[in-house]
Amino acid sequence: MQVKDFQWTPGMTVSELVSQYHQVGYQSVELARAADVIIKMKKENAKIYLTFTSNMVTSGLRGFFAQLIKLKMAQVIVTTVGGIEEDIMKSTGETFSVGRFGHDDVELHEQGINRVGNLLIKNESYMNFEDWITPVLDKLYEKQKRWAVSEMLKEIGLMLEDENSLLYQAAKNDIPIFCPAVTDGAFGFHLYLYQQKHPDFIVDVVKDFGNILFSSSYDEKKAVIALGGSISKHHAILCTLLNGGAEYAVYMTTAHKTSGSMSGATTDEAKSWGKVKDDSDVATVIGDVTIMFPLAMIRALEELRKEGLLQDG
Amino acid sequence: MQVKDFQWTPGMTVSELVSQYHQVGYQSVELARAADVIIKMKKENAKIYLTFTSNMVTSGLRGFFAQLIKLKMAQVIVTTVGGIEEDIMKSTGETFSVGRFGHDDVELHEQGINRVGNLLIKNESYMNFEDWITPVLDKLYEKQKRWAVSEMLKEIGLMLEDENSLLYQAAKNDIPIFCPAVTDGAFGFHLYLYQQKHPDFIVDVVKDFGNILFSSSYDEKKAVIALGGSISKHHAILCTLLNGGAEYAVYMTTAHKTSGSMSGATTDEAKSWGKVKDDSDVATVIGDVTIMFPLAMIRALEELRKEGLLQDG
Amino acid sequence: MQVKDFQWTPGMTVSELVSQYHQVGYQSVELARAADVIIKMKKENAKIYLTFTSNMVTSGLRGFFAQLIKLKMAQVIVTTVGGIEEDIMKSTGETFSVGRFGHDDVELHEQGINRVGNLLIKNESYMNFEDWITPVLDKLYEKQKRWAVSEMLKEIGLMLEDENSLLYQAAKNDIPIFCPAVTDGAFGFHLYLYQQKHPDFIVDVVKDFGNILFSSSYDEKKAVIALGGSISKHHAILCTLLNGGAEYAVYMTTAHKTSGSMSGATTDEAKSWGKVKDDSDVATVIGDVTIMFPLAMIRALEELRKEGLLQDG
Amino acid sequence: MQVKDFQWTPGMTVSELVSQYHQVGYQSVELARAADVIIKMKKENAKIYLTFTSNMVTSGLRGFFAQLIKLKMAQVIVTTVGGIEEDIMKSTGETFSVGRFGHDDVELHEQGINRVGNLLIKNESYMNFEDWITPVLDKLYEKQKRWAVSEMLKEIGLMLEDENSLLYQAAKNDIPIFCPAVTDGAFGFHLYLYQQKHPDFIVDVVKDFGNILFSSSYDEKKAVIALGGSISKHHAILCTLLNGGAEYAVYMTTAHKTSGSMSGATTDEAKSWGKVKDDSDVATVIGDVTIMFPLAMIRALEELRKEGLLQDG
Repeated sequence: MQVKDFQWTPGMTVSELVSQYHQVGYQSVELARAADVIIKMKKENAKIYLTFTSNMVTSGLRGFFAQLIKLKMAQVIVTTVGGIEEDIMKSTGETFSVGRFGHDDVELHEQGINRVGNLLIKNESYMNFEDWITPVLDKLYEKQKRWAVSEMLKEIGLMLEDENSLLYQAAKNDIPIFCPAVTDGAFGFHLYLYQQKHPDFIVDVVKDFGNILFSSSYDEKKAVIALGGSISKHHAILCTLLNGGAEYAVYMTTAHKTSGSMSGATTDEAKSWGKVKDDSDVATVIGDVTIMFPLAMIRALEELRKEGLLQDG
Repeated sequence: MQVKDFQWTPGMTVSELVSQYHQVGYQSVELARAADVIIKMKKENAKIYLTFTSNMVTSGLRGFFAQLIKLKMAQVIVTTVGGIEEDIMKSTGETFSVGRFGHDDVELHEQGINRVGNLLIKNESYMNFEDWITPVLDKLYEKQKRWAVSEMLKEIGLMLEDENSLLYQAAKNDIPIFCPAVTDGAFGFHLYLYQQKHPDFIVDVVKDFGNILFSSSYDEKKAVIALGGSISKHHAILCTLLNGGAEYAVYMTTAHKTSGSMSGATTDEAKSWGKVKDDSDVATVIGDVTIMFPLAMIRALEELRKEGLLQDG
Repeated sequence: MQVKDFQWTPGMTVSELVSQYHQVGYQSVELARAADVIIKMKKENAKIYLTFTSNMVTSGLRGFFAQLIKLKMAQVIVTTVGGIEEDIMKSTGETFSVGRFGHDDVELHEQGINRVGNLLIKNESYMNFEDWITPVLDKLYEKQKRWAVSEMLKEIGLMLEDENSLLYQAAKNDIPIFCPAVTDGAFGFHLYLYQQKHPDFIVDVVKDFGNILFSSSYDEKKAVIALGGSISKHHAILCTLLNGGAEYAVYMTTAHKTSGSMSGATTDEAKSWGKVKDDSDVATVIGDVTIMFPLAMIRALEELRKEGLLQDG
Repeated sequence: MQVKDFQWTPGMTVSELVSQYHQVGYQSVELARAADVIIKMKKENAKIYLTFTSNMVTSGLRGFFAQLIKLKMAQVIVTTVGGIEEDIMKSTGETFSVGRFGHDDVELHEQGINRVGNLLIKNESYMNFEDWITPVLDKLYEKQKRWAVSEMLKEIGLMLEDENSLLYQAAKNDIPIFCPAVTDGAFGFHLYLYQQKHPDFIVDVVKDFGNILFSSSYDEKKAVIALGGSISKHHAILCTLLNGGAEYAVYMTTAHKTSGSMSGATTDEAKSWGKVKDDSDVATVIGDVTIMFPLAMIRALEELRKEGLLQDG
């Protein structure tokens, strides 16, 4: 394909821009390809594993994830526990605000504010979360003593009744949310306190491994969209791999492969799963997910909608 | 400002998307702010120094730069010599193509192809450039023996007659293009060969320093939009600083400040120039320019157009 | 402090080099400071939480971690499950090899080889791991049905009897190893298979949250050395924070704070914990851990040894 | 090669550490390879082009560069003009100091201090540079009116008489220093002011292109050691390429190839020059040069010294 002089036309849509990226160069080309791969995985009815780190839920992408679940653009979700907590906080009325990367952290501490990059969360929001979660754990415990994580999250999701909540939309649409390190956050602390009072209360992470394993079969087509790195990315790759590997993969990350980290692992390795047909089935985009993901996904949504392939659009 | 759940609406424009980025988080917030700063510098009639590295001209952004010059969105251009060469090549009929970062470079070498990231340039294009530039140097030499770089580039620009050429648009609109390291490329080699035959042919870089210095006055408002790093970024900062410093600055780069490099220097330092009023006058966006720059600039163009502030739109 | 001209002297030791880094610039200054902070935390008898991602254990740093545990340079370990698996593999005779980042992954797949950055692991090693771990799970199950992760890892460590094993050294020296996402790897799969046959076999991650919480008290001085990002870094920060915050922190990472990720979070935020006295108590080094960590830690070890503060040196 | 458990031994030298890096993993492997390539290029009597950006001279590496020139470890130098200015400043008594990346830049501005990453330069140093350079330009002008840059820098170097000065050592050892963008700094401003008074004073960058071109022949073996990116890296690559390409290349940079920038270009492309025999002739190390370069170079110096191949050691 030739490099083509890019030009703005007034009123340009996101879809038109991303379409032109194919012929611009560097990461813009990879971004345009990511949109193509997403379109392809949806058309081929692949089971889509969407993974993201908790800071994505801290950001405004949370509402987008909920919308995507509603639109059937993800069949399995994997995230870290901070993402669960903050989705709940937002559903129960907490607001986060936009600050600066360079805030004076000592000053923020004195004001009772926590910083996640350039986003700010009040301590108060964590306290309100505690007040909300404790009676919820009572209800769960009443129902049964031993819980797989994704089953617990479904119960919680149903209680939220917030269209913008990813837990609610997932529960409503019967999409499982997996969270392999469920204790690594405030939620973990509350689970611990609860178990102190109720020693027979058990969070069964081993059982949930079976649940994610059987969330797709060997014969089904599978796809991984991994936003950021960490456990959530690794878990989706591991579990699709144990089922024969994914046919499609889109990774978006600011990390680079030169460090040998999971965050920086590219879709090159996806070719080693033996099921990726060729380069048109995978794309790795280097860049901030808050910008890259809406661009690629909106392009895909517009194309799928045009072809009548979008449910509940 | 509060973090707001982002949601896609069908047919969403680039301007609508970037506007929502204000409330998403991380680099999306910085990108939205970059658009605001560009709008502000234009409204305040600042003299805009637009700088970019040559790989930006290799990419499809070249046509966008030409369009921006036409729209009076830049009053001074600073770039590296590769950008000059490739603008000429494209104007004289050469085509570049989109490849892959992971190409086998030995194989490409055997095919006579050069790789710039994931873009490809044929050796042939360089040879055609040589054929084109030699008679041009003759014409320049006939006119005068000693040339400041920007004056030479203006003469060349006028010869191109290509609306998508940044040299042509700059020449036509009387926008100077500065290129402090003019010998660092194929063009330098041809200048050298020419001087061998004509020892009194002189490229006067020192005189051009005066030209860029007087491209703005101490009292004028100044702005720097620096895409990527290198000499081009440094030169614009240096020269505006010698004139009292810029009031506005937008930097876009994949480099980080932790290495102490010019590429990674952020607009924090711009505050030390003493003329930046507050945080709303500067923005640093970390990310690939081919994606980030169209997004921020299109948002600015749409807003300026809406307010009737865009010339020749 | 003044910048000082660095000069090589024949036979220069690592400690001499790192000492000179104080006066070189950019990340070398941060690295030298990291060594100072490590010395300080040890002298002040802080409880040191050492965290690393599994790819660090894939690399040759695994033996260094074992040595550091032996030297009482860490009191609590947090890692991801891949690190556990690979420590066991190495102890049971598997060898990993050094390859290239650019390997053809399809070819590697055909050869039954897995790639982690530029390191290679044979499929066979995973199969041998399976053969080893299954009878071990039997022994654990015989002993008790419900296991906190760190307690299980201690039992396993004692079986390894390999001086270079971090699990063995940790078990022998009574240092707990925490692994909040214990199912996210081959080990998780084997736990799952085991639970299928023995439904009353429970891995209690909630109980282990209590264990890490009580691994230090509110009044003890605490320190975090976080290598790479992910869950392991977050978990140590979370748990020391719930105990009042750490007094000392050294982070080494290739990630940058501009993405808002945990991997890129710097020790600036550590100041918000309210216990860090000043800048001399924290250091963030941007760079590859395999290079940065030995440099800083060796400098610290040499200084501590000189002062007779190193146990079992 | 196998991954080997790394272990510290008291009194470990830099050379011993780097030697072990071969078997650690990720960038440590690349770093150890970089040392090997440097040893190889020296043993093969390749002409070594050493390039670095000006911030390397701001740092304490400046004295190391001078030492390397003295030890005949570089035959051609390419840098940016800031490096020239700061080498002169340091030779004429100015001192730079170590600060922090996070300094308040407005405050620094009020104190008349300039920040380069975490290094600080007083405005006063620039004023003293002005006082020193003006009579020097008089002397140069008296001698001749038209100067190639490298010839001018040699004259200046001889005036410095400072063993730690890279200009002095280069001049004394007849090593040319090339600086294609000589006007891009305070020096450029002084050249401009001088030319205003003496319009026949000419800095001939075109002639200097010939000088660097003939600094090696087509038949000689050539090597490039590029620290950081920018014009200096590009210029050395361009000029060796015009002479048939280098046989050896070591690049050290914090930039990544995914942006398509010169700073991020890896030695993979060096293979396309047609003269690199195999992977053992090139190495790309991702990381901060202030740490990486001393490590690799010291390892090379120690090995060369051991074999009696180091001149003037």
